[in-house]
Amino acid sequence: MKTVRVPASSANLGPGFDTLGMALGIYLECRYEPCERLRIEVAGRDAAFIAADETNLIWRTIASYNAAPLRLEIRNDIPLGKGLGSSAAALTAGIAIGNPDWSRERVMNECSRLEGHPDNAAACALGGIVASANTREGATEAVSLPLPPGVAIALIVPDFALPTSKARAALPECYSRADAVFNLQRTALLVAALATGSPHALSTALEDVLHQPYRASLVPGLSEILALRAPGLLGCTLSGAGPSVLVFFEADRKDCVRQAAGVFAGSAEVLFPSVDNHGYMRL
Amino acid sequence: MKTVRVPASSANLGPGFDTLGMALGIYLECRYEPCERLRIEVAGRDAAFIAADETNLIWRTIASYNAAPLRLEIRNDIPLGKGLGSSAAALTAGIAIGNPDWSRERVMNECSRLEGHPDNAAACALGGIVASANTREGATEAVSLPLPPGVAIALIVPDFALPTSKARAALPECYSRADAVFNLQRTALLVAALATGSPHALSTALEDVLHQPYRASLVPGLSEILALRAPGLLGCTLSGAGPSVLVFFEADRKDCVRQAAGVFAGSAEVLFPSVDNHGYMRL
Repeated sequence: MKTVRVPASSANLGPGFDTLGMALGIYLECRYEPCERLRIEVAGRDAAFIAADETNLIWRTIASYNAAPLRLEIRNDIPLGKGLGSSAAALTAGIAIGNPDWSRERVMNECSRLEGHPDNAAACALGGIVASANTREGATEAVSLPLPPGVAIALIVPDFALPTSKARAALPECYSRADAVFNLQRTALLVAALATGSPHALSTALEDVLHQPYRASLVPGLSEILALRAPGLLGCTLSGAGPSVLVFFEADRKDCVRQAAGVFAGSAEVLFPSVDNHGYMRL
Repeated sequence: MKTVRVPASSANLGPGFDTLGMALGIYLECRYEPCERLRIEVAGRDAAFIAADETNLIWRTIASYNAAPLRLEIRNDIPLGKGLGSSAAALTAGIAIGNPDWSRERVMNECSRLEGHPDNAAACALGGIVASANTREGATEAVSLPLPPGVAIALIVPDFALPTSKARAALPECYSRADAVFNLQRTALLVAALATGSPHALSTALEDVLHQPYRASLVPGLSEILALRAPGLLGCTLSGAGPSVLVFFEADRKDCVRQAAGVFAGSAEVLFPSVDNHGYMRL
């Protein structure tokens, strides 16, 4: 059997709404081979919520390019509905399986088009921390950076799910020039700080006024965790449309992550994934 | 005599309105020593437009900290009123001379406060290509990058001046979410492309919908030069509030700059400065 493995991703990093994504070392893995009739097996995290018939999102994506039946073994470790890019991973897997000869760039462009925003798609395709833009021609231009030395990440995953559509509906249609500039300045600073290894700039660079304040009411505890200052804590950001929170911290100060997790009223799981620096793989 | 030398700067780089600046190897140099009464001498470019009495901007800035009279020899090579940061350079010189014990960071914060935006001030203080943000506490956080290998810059300086106040008045107070995201994506991409040496991304990364379209009517030829595609040309951006245009090009393709300059209806001077990587210097 052939295998395609796709990373989870955190999008909307801090000020980088629809702009900055990060690929995480948490994976969706699909093994597949031709078969007389469609056969889907699902294992792993949240398997009970993943359809094992022709309504499965990965299969529907594959079938939109090539409807020849497959035996498809899905092993998922990405929490669903938590803002960790599970739908972008499913789309990327489906596009890559359905189009075995497509380049990484073409897979990224297609996923970005289907998603409507490029940040998860670019992280799934390239790995690392990815700056991405939709071009006027409908393609995606993206550049990837590694996480700088000495900086680590954690995920705080609350025990409730949040539909992306609901989180997006909370946003205004217009912003003041001051708010637009606020995020522009921090997005530039964030990329420059990550590229040059300047973690001292992260607490300012992760501030945002374009999306997180409008989503705070949907994620109890979010305002508190974003405002938290603690030794070793470099900054927090809502992951994608939430409700998960991505934490940047000094690599030798894991303790501050537990403190941050304690801010959520409900119970929350804490994960310490690596950053995936490869993007999807055909194995 | 003591000397303070400050670089010119291009601000508002592409999508990075009030955000991204670049320090240029074109200088304002001030030599000074205590004197019984104020004595100012001016030489260099546009010297006729630089006051040689107590109304001089550099002197007024110095005097706001320490009004003891000086002999001040000003040698200026920065074109005035052309969007090349001459006022930020004058302020930085005045702050640095008036406060000989201040750190580079404190000089930057003060200049940024006086200017009202951080991009020229950060370029004057740190050199290089600088991402900067005004913090909520009223300071400036900034991170500097060098220009990547293989990429060169040029300036096209039209023969008319444009007051910054007029250029700023042309901007709207509000933007759509789509426009804000357009510039966020490109600002992130621009910094990532410069940091990783990915010049192929520059033509998309330099696009902007927040300031240049509104200023196009003030700079005849601007729309044409921004839309120009030519071999070796990586992208163009209005420098500061204009009217100068900063050109990024492949270092071995200087010819494309002449082609770009030809787009301006009036006559324009072409300069090939280096990028200053030091910021202001006390010599």
